[in-house]
Amino acid sequence: MNEEILTLIENKEFVRLRSTLSEMNAPDLAVIFEEVPQEHILRLFRFLPKELAAETFVEMDADTQEHLIQSFSDKELHDVLDEMFVDDTVDVIEEMPANVVKRILKHTDPQTRSEINKILNYPKDSAGSIMTIEYVDLKAHMTVAEAFDRIRKTGVDKETVYTCYVTDQNRRLIGITTVKDLLLNDYETKIGDMMETNVIYVDTALDKEEVANMCDKYDFLAIPVVDKETRLVGIITFDDVIDVIQEENTEDIEKMAAILPSEKPYLKTTAFEIFRNRIPWLMLLMLSATFTGKIISSFEDTLATCVALTAFIPMLMGTGGNSGGQASVTIIRSLSLGDVEMGDVLRILRKEFSVSLFCGVSLAVVNFGKMLLIDRGAILASGQDPMTISIIVSLTLLATVVCAKLVGSSLPIIVKRFGFDPAVTASPFVTTIVDAISLLIYFVIAMQFLKF
Amino acid sequence: MNEEILTLIENKEFVRLRSTLSEMNAPDLAVIFEEVPQEHILRLFRFLPKELAAETFVEMDADTQEHLIQSFSDKELHDVLDEMFVDDTVDVIEEMPANVVKRILKHTDPQTRSEINKILNYPKDSAGSIMTIEYVDLKAHMTVAEAFDRIRKTGVDKETVYTCYVTDQNRRLIGITTVKDLLLNDYETKIGDMMETNVIYVDTALDKEEVANMCDKYDFLAIPVVDKETRLVGIITFDDVIDVIQEENTEDIEKMAAILPSEKPYLKTTAFEIFRNRIPWLMLLMLSATFTGKIISSFEDTLATCVALTAFIPMLMGTGGNSGGQASVTIIRSLSLGDVEMGDVLRILRKEFSVSLFCGVSLAVVNFGKMLLIDRGAILASGQDPMTISIIVSLTLLATVVCAKLVGSSLPIIVKRFGFDPAVTASPFVTTIVDAISLLIYFVIAMQFLKF
Repeated sequence: MNEEILTLIENKEFVRLRSTLSEMNAPDLAVIFEEVPQEHILRLFRFLPKELAAETFVEMDADTQEHLIQSFSDKELHDVLDEMFVDDTVDVIEEMPANVVKRILKHTDPQTRSEINKILNYPKDSAGSIMTIEYVDLKAHMTVAEAFDRIRKTGVDKETVYTCYVTDQNRRLIGITTVKDLLLNDYETKIGDMMETNVIYVDTALDKEEVANMCDKYDFLAIPVVDKETRLVGIITFDDVIDVIQEENTEDIEKMAAILPSEKPYLKTTAFEIFRNRIPWLMLLMLSATFTGKIISSFEDTLATCVALTAFIPMLMGTGGNSGGQASVTIIRSLSLGDVEMGDVLRILRKEFSVSLFCGVSLAVVNFGKMLLIDRGAILASGQDPMTISIIVSLTLLATVVCAKLVGSSLPIIVKRFGFDPAVTASPFVTTIVDAISLLIYFVIAMQFLKF
Repeated sequence: MNEEILTLIENKEFVRLRSTLSEMNAPDLAVIFEEVPQEHILRLFRFLPKELAAETFVEMDADTQEHLIQSFSDKELHDVLDEMFVDDTVDVIEEMPANVVKRILKHTDPQTRSEINKILNYPKDSAGSIMTIEYVDLKAHMTVAEAFDRIRKTGVDKETVYTCYVTDQNRRLIGITTVKDLLLNDYETKIGDMMETNVIYVDTALDKEEVANMCDKYDFLAIPVVDKETRLVGIITFDDVIDVIQEENTEDIEKMAAILPSEKPYLKTTAFEIFRNRIPWLMLLMLSATFTGKIISSFEDTLATCVALTAFIPMLMGTGGNSGGQASVTIIRSLSLGDVEMGDVLRILRKEFSVSLFCGVSLAVVNFGKMLLIDRGAILASGQDPMTISIIVSLTLLATVVCAKLVGSSLPIIVKRFGFDPAVTASPFVTTIVDAISLLIYFVIAMQFLKF
């Protein structure tokens, strides 16, 4: 597709170029603009019909947007901004350097500019920061026919017309109605008589993840956002909700892998930025492994007389880490989906205890058999009794799995109680703690059996 | 809320109960039904208005649904099924035992029954299996006024009326239009003249994850599903898309934590089911750690003469595992969001090589300093030279981090190329491989420096 467009530019087949471009969708066009050589970008952009141009602009990455804003004439910039929804303009502004932001604000009309500034002032990740102000508002005294007139007149610039918001003279939200309901009622019906008054709304300060969870739960096309006096200030539409869900999922997954959240797609992030997101946890976890090292050092005599024990340290620590990681990731995900709450901690611990016994016993039995069959020779060669070593390792395995599951499942809840994001307590974090625990168990059990 | 309802039942305050219930939302009601004692469920359900009753039924968990279906009179079952959308009925059927399914199918009308059977026959996770058949279809020769008439007449039973689908006499999809466009056009305009003919649709066989990615990309309220002859057979709406996205994310997260995907929320899964989902990978990873054990055994002599080396094994393996896990999780997530593709493998390896050098050098330098400051005494006590041991460990750390990042970032792509889900190559899997590599590097370097 990209090459076809390039050939059309180079052969100056502008008529075909214009018609090819105008039949495409904004997200696909955005990809082409990001890949086309910079000198063609502005020329190509000028071939797009006005509305599609603005839609495509919104979908582009920040670098391409910045290049275009710098190259636009004043009139072009004004036209694009005029077609954009306020929430999209805010998204663009948040990515741009100060001089570009100035240029954007200079070319928006005063009222929009003040709305933009208001949205920019809401706390990061709040409902207010992702809402849009382009909604259809109705009054209770209007008839269905008048409502349709209003939608016809003002709807073209609204992000959605399908849910309409009814406000009183103080701009307080008193009801909602949908175009579907409007269509299914007579033209003479008063909005006040047919609207839904039991409205679910969110406060401007609510975290966007909770907004997304609510929309997911209630299957809302859009959710109204109100200020402290329940005055309607904006709406959040389902497409932005989907974006929030994907962003939050990516963030959770990154945190679970001990990575600081990144803002950009992988291939657009420089190696140094990736390094900056990954090194803090790596460094912290590496230094905290000092602790495990100390445990080993203090049992050095045990190890020196029975080197055979060393061979099973990676397996014990690995299985402990995996067991704990499974439990913590399950609880982290359940917390973020709202499937479990703080109050469930005892039920969780009881369940994980059963699970850990099932897992621990199965693993210990299989390991015991495996050691007697496969590792027998190696253990004998190091001058130890295979039966004793197998019992030590299998008992440690059982105890480690039980501890790991209990630590793994309770940590996310404890961390959440203290107001932190439970996602950071996934595998890497749990592993470091479980490593130390499993080594302690190992040496304590070994010392019992080997009588040092 | 729950207790308020229970008190109302017990005090037989049925008028207040009915009005309290009818003002609530289906998702909230469903939670109450799941928590109320079983003997009250049917009685409580009978207080709900017909439409809300069906909506609430759809939101309940399978156990409560099954209990209700078993207790319903024939008429009640028929009424609930009549109000439900076909895709929701299919979802319910998929969770029910055979005798309940029979009862459901007996009480649906023949046409719906045949539609249900068709949807049940589409492969699991395909677009066909999650679509609904309740959409508004229009003809090209209709006027806007006629289209509105049709929506008014048939719209009440449709899952969405806002996107309408235009089909020819062979039911082939030839265009779409939205209620917004209908509202913004004159009543006399022909649908054929105003409809969007450049329609994006999906095949019944397309994987639901790809359907969700498309809806996310294009911000669709609903996407049409067609058969091989591009005949329209159903639509998938945004609320189902959000559910698919959440399910797929949960599945990916579970796979990354070496857990088999679970179908039910945590608290509703029995300990034995959780065990069954967790034990396969735990067992496999435990057994594959035999390999790491063998490496240690074969270097037993090295370890016996220099036990100090053992103390750093957990730190080296842990840091290697974390480094590899970070890289693999980043690539897995980027693959599933479509940010990177198979063809990007060289760019990824080059980037990860730089990242791993940054990370590896930083970690090695800090570790070197830490060992000389903190571990110096312990190393001296075991009769070794702190400088030599610190150099061995730091060099191993650097090499391990580089290997881990390269393995971690390339594995997901290799696994995907062979048609498997890359999510299984996250931390636990990568860790097991990196453990072995880091031990080999460790002993090889140690033998160079310690001259065995």
